[in-house]
Amino acid sequence: MTQRVAGCELCELSAPTVVDNDRFAVILVDDANYPGFARVIWKDHVREVSDLADADRLLLNDAVYRLELAVREVMQPLKVNVASLGNVVPHLHWHVIARFVWDSRFPQPVWAAARRSVEPPAEARLALPPAALDARVARAAAVAAGH
Amino acid sequence: MTQRVAGCELCELSAPTVVDNDRFAVILVDDANYPGFARVIWKDHVREVSDLADADRLLLNDAVYRLELAVREVMQPLKVNVASLGNVVPHLHWHVIARFVWDSRFPQPVWAAARRSVEPPAEARLALPPAALDARVARAAAVAAGH
Repeated sequence: MTQRVAGCELCELSAPTVVDNDRFAVILVDDANYPGFARVIWKDHVREVSDLADADRLLLNDAVYRLELAVREVMQPLKVNVASLGNVVPHLHWHVIARFVWDSRFPQPVWAAARRSVEPPAEARLALPPAALDARVARAAAVAAGH
Repeated sequence: MTQRVAGCELCELSAPTVVDNDRFAVILVDDANYPGFARVIWKDHVREVSDLADADRLLLNDAVYRLELAVREVMQPLKVNVASLGNVVPHLHWHVIARFVWDSRFPQPVWAAARRSVEPPAEARLALPPAALDARVARAAAVAAGH
């Protein structure tokens, strides 16, 4: 049975999922500045990676790896950023973020202050509009997850 | 044979290591604001987690997990942050960071702008001075790595 905590926004996830099983979900983050920004969200309300049983930890590691592959394949980023923070929402989740030399914070992490305004914007610099890239990442993530 | 790139500061690592084998090293980051801040540095000059062979990826995952355990044991943080970014130095490494509600950036990541000055400072809030905590994390990391 999945452990749920009332009021936790990740226990009560409402975002559309691109991968969804009884252990974890994958979502795309709706951010026009960072197309292909995705998260793996563990279903149980667990705080830290090291709170997981070994088999679950390896399963989650594998899910993050497969998402990284999908993001790389579609976005062809200069660098992938992968992070488990959870300071704001202490429910285990991983960020997978495609980074480009022209993005508003590069080479700082996406949580730093913006260093530049992106002109022309992200959508003029990428092969497809952000929504189309997100859709491709979603499809690639589902395939990579074996769906 | 280890893959090296001339001029890469992580290929030419000069910091003291607390774990050091032919595949990866663990170092403590010298930051008085963040005692127990540690990194796992992959020895080969590889850019992304997903550039690793499966066995190496699992070995690195395990090293990051063991470091997280060591940091938790010693620091007893409110939250652990774990990240592979590499935008500045694109040589695969993982940050493992102990976070506290009173630290200068909480709940933002440590790469965000400071939100507060920490008064009393970190060393007055922790059980031991930062250098002593770093030494304990170093020891725990070595034990966790099986050294």
